[in-house]
Amino acid sequence: MTESVGFIGLGGMGLAMATNVLKAGFGLRIYNRTAEKARPLLERGAVLARSPSEAVVPGGIVVTMVSDDQAVEDVTLGANGLLGRLGNGVHLSMSTISPRTARRLADLHQEGGAHYVASPVFGKPEVAAEARLWVVTSGNATARARVRRLQEAMSQRVFDFGEDPGAANVIKLAGNFLLGAAIEAMAEAFTLVQKHGVARQEAYEFFTQTLFDCFVYRGYGALVASEHYQPVGASPSLIRKDYGLIIEAAAEGLVPMPLAGLIHERLTATVAKGRDDADWAGFAREVSESAGL
Amino acid sequence: MTESVGFIGLGGMGLAMATNVLKAGFGLRIYNRTAEKARPLLERGAVLARSPSEAVVPGGIVVTMVSDDQAVEDVTLGANGLLGRLGNGVHLSMSTISPRTARRLADLHQEGGAHYVASPVFGKPEVAAEARLWVVTSGNATARARVRRLQEAMSQRVFDFGEDPGAANVIKLAGNFLLGAAIEAMAEAFTLVQKHGVARQEAYEFFTQTLFDCFVYRGYGALVASEHYQPVGASPSLIRKDYGLIIEAAAEGLVPMPLAGLIHERLTATVAKGRDDADWAGFAREVSESAGL
Repeated sequence: MTESVGFIGLGGMGLAMATNVLKAGFGLRIYNRTAEKARPLLERGAVLARSPSEAVVPGGIVVTMVSDDQAVEDVTLGANGLLGRLGNGVHLSMSTISPRTARRLADLHQEGGAHYVASPVFGKPEVAAEARLWVVTSGNATARARVRRLQEAMSQRVFDFGEDPGAANVIKLAGNFLLGAAIEAMAEAFTLVQKHGVARQEAYEFFTQTLFDCFVYRGYGALVASEHYQPVGASPSLIRKDYGLIIEAAAEGLVPMPLAGLIHERLTATVAKGRDDADWAGFAREVSESAGL
Repeated sequence: MTESVGFIGLGGMGLAMATNVLKAGFGLRIYNRTAEKARPLLERGAVLARSPSEAVVPGGIVVTMVSDDQAVEDVTLGANGLLGRLGNGVHLSMSTISPRTARRLADLHQEGGAHYVASPVFGKPEVAAEARLWVVTSGNATARARVRRLQEAMSQRVFDFGEDPGAANVIKLAGNFLLGAAIEAMAEAFTLVQKHGVARQEAYEFFTQTLFDCFVYRGYGALVASEHYQPVGASPSLIRKDYGLIIEAAAEGLVPMPLAGLIHERLTATVAKGRDDADWAGFAREVSESAGL
């Protein structure tokens, strides 16, 4: 018997992830604010829902992958929100949102007998398309076990962070912070060598063959070295939203994070200058420009 | 015929490097300010020199591996300095010093018909002992070719950065900056997750298995996660000296480097608090302490 799951949010990430759910043999009830995004999935047999609520099979699983805290709250708690119809089902919440919102939503689900599983992801849309995401998850253990096969259909690996529904979101925010920190570091380092007559590309090649021979430095480093910030994996304004969440979580936990503050300001300047059509790593241009390049 | 080379500076790094030069079949004339450090090498056939000058075979190669710009200048230019006896030989300068000093020394060597090859290294003493260092080098091409076999005897790989004698030192400074940036980033990230109830170790394991699966994050990350900063690979005061050079090179090139400035202040606080008996990654404690931990 094919289990039918709901999927809400068909942006660049959501569409790729939902496609892999379908490929894995699940039935799919899909909802997106702009319905035409759903077309490729309808052609593969998905059913179109006219509201978040309609995407839900009572007692079943519904996935959300939307842009921010407000959007998750809207599709969950609104008049036609998913929670009203979820019964004792599970809400698999994959958006990058604040730990605080995750904890609050988990409480609201529990009150009605439903479960909330936090499950943000690491990876760009092309990684999502290949089902090579890294998923981090936390929440009620039974509910987590129930959604595991679904998570695996979208990812190369799932990492468990226990019962606290906020935990997975903290890890996701820490990860986006670490990515930005690596970009800032390379931006300063490559600009330093450039001003001393060494090509950015030469420095990039040396460091990614030695001390920093890993995914993030190779990938983002290539953008920072070439100063060509295309294609857009994620926009500056989207990641600036995440840095707002990082700073909010840091404030809540009383953790001074000066480097997070610096990167947030870099992203603010990038958005202010109208550079939202380049990848968010383009905030590295703030460093070059401050050095008169 | 065995070529005899001079080796000046037998600290933790120098002693390990000189031992590998001897093992590779070179003859060795060694000088160190405190002569008893030379004993293990004398037992293996090295000859003790009473001054930097005495370590030189005129027209030959002399290696220096000392603590800072001043120490390189002292052993090179002083009354008993190596340059007075070098003739048309090559000075292989492996210390971490400023690009400015490297360029100035190269000019002084050239005036007398000698050559200066910049050749700083990446790696801790135990890496040096295994001849697994990464060497970065720049300077006159003929002189570089002449010292190549010697560099290879101490390293796993040699990376060339062209004719400018300052270039290799800029790369070395950029590398030490990138290392510190990774430590600061992990310190902020791990403290954030800790304050939100996730163990530092859990975050460390996740990130080094996914986005940051590389040498630096695994190695320094283990220290920052455990908050146990032993053994001492390099002391806070030694690396604080390097950050002084980074900031000097940035000022010379007109490159604002706010992250380098932040790490320099972290190291200053670490030294001020009398924590020079722990590894320099211990500056991460400044982050935990600022968060009240």
